Order: sequence, then C-alpha cells, then structure tokens
Amino acid sequence: MSHAPTDALERRHQAVRREAAARGVDALVVTSLPNVLYLTNFTGSAAIAVVTADRVHFLTDFRYVTAVNDARGTGQECPGLELAIVDGAYDTTLARLLSALPARRIGFEAAHLTVSRHRLLEGALAQNGASHELVATEGLVEGVRAVKDAHEIGTLREAASRLSVVARRVIADVRRGRTEREIAHMIDSHLVEGGFTKPAFDTIAASGPNAALPHAHPGERKLTEGDLVVLDFGGVYDSYCVDLTRTVSVGPANERTREVYSAVRDAHDRAIAAVAPGRSRFEIDRAARDTLAERGLGEAFGHGTGHGLGIEVHEDPKISRRRPDLDAHAEDETVTAGMVFTIEPGAYLPGWGGVRIEDDVLVTTSGVEVLTDVTTELLEI
Amino acid sequence: MSHAPTDALERRHQAVRREAAARGVDALVVTSLPNVLYLTNFTGSAAIAVVTADRVHFLTDFRYVTAVNDARGTGQECPGLELAIVDGAYDTTLARLLSALPARRIGFEAAHLTVSRHRLLEGALAQNGASHELVATEGLVEGVRAVKDAHEIGTLREAASRLSVVARRVIADVRRGRTEREIAHMIDSHLVEGGFTKPAFDTIAASGPNAALPHAHPGERKLTEGDLVVLDFGGVYDSYCVDLTRTVSVGPANERTREVYSAVRDAHDRAIAAVAPGRSRFEIDRAARDTLAERGLGEAFGHGTGHGLGIEVHEDPKISRRRPDLDAHAEDETVTAGMVFTIEPGAYLPGWGGVRIEDDVLVTTSGVEVLTDVTTELLEI
Repeated sequence: MSHAPTDALERRHQAVRREAAARGVDALVVTSLPNVLYLTNFTGSAAIAVVTADRVHFLTDFRYVTAVNDARGTGQECPGLELAIVDGAYDTTLARLLSALPARRIGFEAAHLTVSRHRLLEGALAQNGASHELVATEGLVEGVRAVKDAHEIGTLREAASRLSVVARRVIADVRRGRTEREIAHMIDSHLVEGGFTKPAFDTIAASGPNAALPHAHPGERKLTEGDLVVLDFGGVYDSYCVDLTRTVSVGPANERTREVYSAVRDAHDRAIAAVAPGRSRFEIDRAARDTLAERGLGEAFGHGTGHGLGIEVHEDPKISRRRPDLDAHAEDETVTAGMVFTIEPGAYLPGWGGVRIEDDVLVTTSGVEVLTDVTTELLEI
Repeated sequence: MSHAPTDALERRHQAVRREAAARGVDALVVTSLPNVLYLTNFTGSAAIAVVTADRVHFLTDFRYVTAVNDARGTGQECPGLELAIVDGAYDTTLARLLSALPARRIGFEAAHLTVSRHRLLEGALAQNGASHELVATEGLVEGVRAVKDAHEIGTLREAASRLSVVARRVIADVRRGRTEREIAHMIDSHLVEGGFTKPAFDTIAASGPNAALPHAHPGERKLTEGDLVVLDFGGVYDSYCVDLTRTVSVGPANERTREVYSAVRDAHDRAIAAVAPGRSRFEIDRAARDTLAERGLGEAFGHGTGHGLGIEVHEDPKISRRRPDLDAHAEDETVTAGMVFTIEPGAYLPGWGGVRIEDDVLVTTSGVEVLTDVTTELLEI
C-alpha cells in the first residue's frame, strides 16, 4: 500500500493546527477513524489521535502496536507521533493523557463522539482534578480533507482509472437470465481482480422495476428482455473510495426508456459542465435538477446530485439542493480546486424502473477533470 | 432474505418496552442501525425508530420508502409501524415527531447519538416549545439482543454451518508460493459462493512473522515452508455475522510450533468446556488465559477470548478479563441460554509468528453447542 508521505502528513497537521487555533482550541481530540487515518496513515480499526502544537499523541491497543512501530523510520512515518498504548478502555487512557497536557481548551469532534463517551470523558477529567475545558468542534478535519492534496489526487486518479476498467468488464457480464445477485458477485470479483481492497459499499445491481429503488439489494430476479439495469459499484483503493454507475438496457430500448435515459444523461452532462472552482455546490445540483424538471422528471429525482469522495465514500462536499434546515449558515458553499466528488443524477419511476449515471470528477484550477472514463451512451445488450 | 417473522418482532418490541419502562422512559429513540434492524427488519443504511407504548414510528428517506411499503402485509411486516418520510435532515423530522408525542421522558441511545446530534435535538425540541426531557440510556436494546430468539439461532446455526464448509475449502487453498492477498481473495470468493452477502470484516490471511499481528492486512508476502498461517474470516448471512479462525502450517511443523499450537488448542477447548448458562464471562476468559499462562504464553495472549455475534460481528457478551475501568459495575456478568459468541484464544510472538483458533458457540439450557464444525488438529500442508 502506498500511504501518504511524511511531508504530506506534516502539511495536514499544520492545516489542522491552524484551523484549531482559529477556533480557539489548543489541542484537538480526533476520534473519527477516517480523520485519524488522514493524519497518521493508520488503517486499523481502533485509535485516537490528539493533535497538539508540536505532537500527535496516538492511542491504540496491543493489536496495532507492532504495525505502528514498523512505520517508524519509513518515508510514510507520521511526524511528531507519540505512542500511548491502551490497556483497558480507550477513554480512560485518553482522559489520563489529556489531564497531563498543558493545553487548556481541548477541542473534540462533536459529530464523532457519542454522548456516552463525552460524559465519561468529562467525568474522568473532573476526577483527575484537571481544569481542562472540552470544546465541541464541527467538521474541522473534514474541512481540510475536502480539498485533496497531490498524494490523494494521484491515488483517486489511479483508483478511478481502475474502476473504469472494472466497469467495462461489468457491462460485458450483463446477460439475459443472470440474476441480480450473480451480477453483483461478478462485480465484486472484478473489483478485487482490479486491485481494490474491497467494495466501497454494497454493490447494487437492480433490474426492471427494482431499478426504481435507488438503493436496492441485489436479489434473485433474473435479467429479462426490456429491463433497464442499474449497476452501481465502488472500490477502496489504497484507502480511497471511488464510485461509478451505469444503466444498461437488456435488449432494444423502447421510446420511453430512451427519453428517460437521455434526460438523465443530459442532467449528468450539464452538471459536469457546471463544475468549476468558485461555483456553488447548490448551483451544480441545480444544473442536473432543472434539466430533469424540464423533461417532466423533477419528481423522479429524489436524491442529491453528488457527494465528495476520499477516505470515505460519502464526504464533503455535498452536491445537493440547499436545505433550509441544514444549510442555513453554509459557509462551505463553493467548490474549490482539489475537491473530488461524484455527479450522479437519476430518475426513478415506481413500477417502471430507473436510470442513474454516475462519474467521479476533480475540480481543477481551470475547471473540471472527469476521473472515470466509460461511455455514457445507452448500451443495448 | 429470510427476515424475522412479525411475531418475533412483536416480542422484541415488548422486551424493549419493558426495559424502557424499568428505566422510567415513555419512548425510546433508536438511532443505532443494528438496533433498528433488530426491531423492524430494515436493512437499509439510514433510518431511526421511535418505540412508544403502542407504535414503532419509523423515519426513513425517499430511497427506502418503496422497500418499507413492500414489506406491508407480508409475514415479516413490522408490527405497529408508522412511517414518517424524511425530507431534509433526519433530526429535524425526529424533533417534529417527538414534539407531537404524548410521551414526556424520551430515552435516547447515549452510545449511538453524537454530541452534535444531541445538541441539535435539544435545540429543536426547545424551539418547538416542547417540554420533553431527553434521557440518556445505555445498552437497552443491546441487552435484549444479547440473548438470541429462535429465528436468530436458526439463522446463526445455518450461517455457522456454511462458514464451516467455506473453512474446509479455504484450508485446501493454502499452498506454498501463494501470497496472503491471493489467499484472502480466495476466502472472500468462497464466502460469496457459500451464500454470504459479504465478508463480516476484512479477511485476515497472515503468514510467518505477520501472524504475530492479530489484525494484519493481507499483503504480498508469499507462503513459505515452515510458515504458520492465521486465516480469520467471517460472513454476513441473512444479516447475521459468524466468524472463524484456523491456523495451518506450511510443511511439517517444528517442535516449538507444536508446543504453541497445542497450548492455544487446549485454551480453546477449556474455554468451550467452561461455557454454560449462569457462568461468568470473566471465568470463561480465565479458562483460556490460565491455560496459556501455564504454558508460559500468558504475555503472548493480548486480546479477549471472545465476543458476541449477531447483527454485528462484535456485540455483547464480551468474553474478556474483568477490567476495573470498564467492568466495575458489571451487572451483565453471567452468560445465559441463547447467547452466541466466539471462543478465540491466540498466542502471538513478535518475529516468530502466531496461532489463533476460533469457533462460534451457542449457550444452551444444558451447556454449550459449538456451531462451527472444522477440525482443530494442526494441519501440515
């Protein structure tokens, strides 16, 4: 696996420290595992990082100590790492470590700390006689992560290229009489053969009326003449997620199918054409949404146009409608160079079926680069 | 997929209502998705259930509405289900729903609600002029889930039997010159062919010195004469997880290998022999731990002896040492009939390698039933 080089980690730490300082906190407790991975290259299943002015305190347990020590002295070593081995409960070790820090205002990730753990931590700090204040922060590391660095862009570009190869194989597998479940298993096998560690989410192969369910589970239904089949799959490559959807027709498509497909394809193309640095993410969504509405498919498109890709398969930025209850104070409205996200409009008609077309794009300084590369023509198989 | 029958769901709801009443709450907001699945058969990726005295209010979004409606009138329908469709933020819809409830003391899952969401929810309730009190609860549904019902035991028994078939195929795949990654991919393919929806966790194939890392990632190392290879894999079958480990020797094992293997095997056997209703989970752990300590391998066994299996691959009960910081007030110390968990002692010697042997057991009214069925003899391949 090719992890981020040490100097990239160092730049990420500095960005997080600047952002923490701007919010008036002296140290940040990072409990989100994707955020921990981003800051330390740690790919295990349990760890906490505490970023202070000059250290990254790293809490993990027995299972991962050897792996952490093996990274030392390599070009992917985490700078400033100070290992604390947990024996017992993570939060007990964390409270002990925090109590001994000179930092007074300690930020925590409010979206990644449960009420249980927060209470335990406050209790333990009080018991230790510590005068530290726990300060809720939101989206601090995520904001830094939304703009990818060179290592990440390289990884995502390679991953998207591999996913495109997988997609071409997947399309060739679609055949009358195969079940959705068989197709989904073939997709998962192609992902593994294509160098992906694992699928990025549960693979979707939804045929005929099932294609009207945007998140259908693949079942025993056999592909049948006249079906539209939505194939939505993604892979994790060197810890980074990519995601792609194509919809194909089993046999010749009828007129209604062509209409719906062409509307979704136009929505996809216009949304991609709307991507550029400085653009509003709501505007990019609107480009897709208005196209579908013009074709009488406004109601048929119930989800957002896209989502950020990176260590997680759904991250910032969200390419969606502005929602008054969520986006009232959205300061993160514009997309900037280095952001990577999906463009995936769809149209779903209960009883009839559905169409979705999805590609992954990178915002460049001059506009947009489409990272995935598979035809969007309607294929009749 | 064979979901839980409606009457099983009804019994689960009643158990949760009794437990909620015992804790003085009139309604319970269930935000843990495994808990939602347990109470409603919902297998999607976003939903909240609110269990009241006579209803299960069910919040989900556009993507899942058709799936929820399709379950109505079937034998796996969720009783008392009242659908609320979310358009926008889940917690906004949740706050609106809670404000309209007659219930006054509303329990929430403190371990499955972040500080962010708790704050949003409290703010929204206050804004709605609601006089509801949010009450933190811990492990309420999990406590009910720890004891499996007949549907769950049937599913886990079938899953464990299928996993045993997979294990025999996996052992036959171990061959000099194959890489860990190749072996891991073969395991994942066998899981899918064996009827599993997906691996229950990232498959482990750790050879030679890598076997000393209990949670190693499979890499490019080739299996070599004299290696021990730890093969740890699990599958999700009808939403339930099973988990199995075997350690095999590539070529004839030397004396030290035989010693360590036999110590782990004895620890495994003695821990299983210690399983019976009414036994302490710490005692079962001690049976394994003492066996290894007697053979000078106490330090080499750094993890717990086992973990519960069910909708999640790690759930209650934990078969582990009593830890003063975690288990000071453990009321849930004894295991009871219907619990299903792993027994998986191991010994890890840095630089040398490791051994782990894992089976899945069900506590019966008379003792124990081992659900997995694969030889624990040391195989030399």
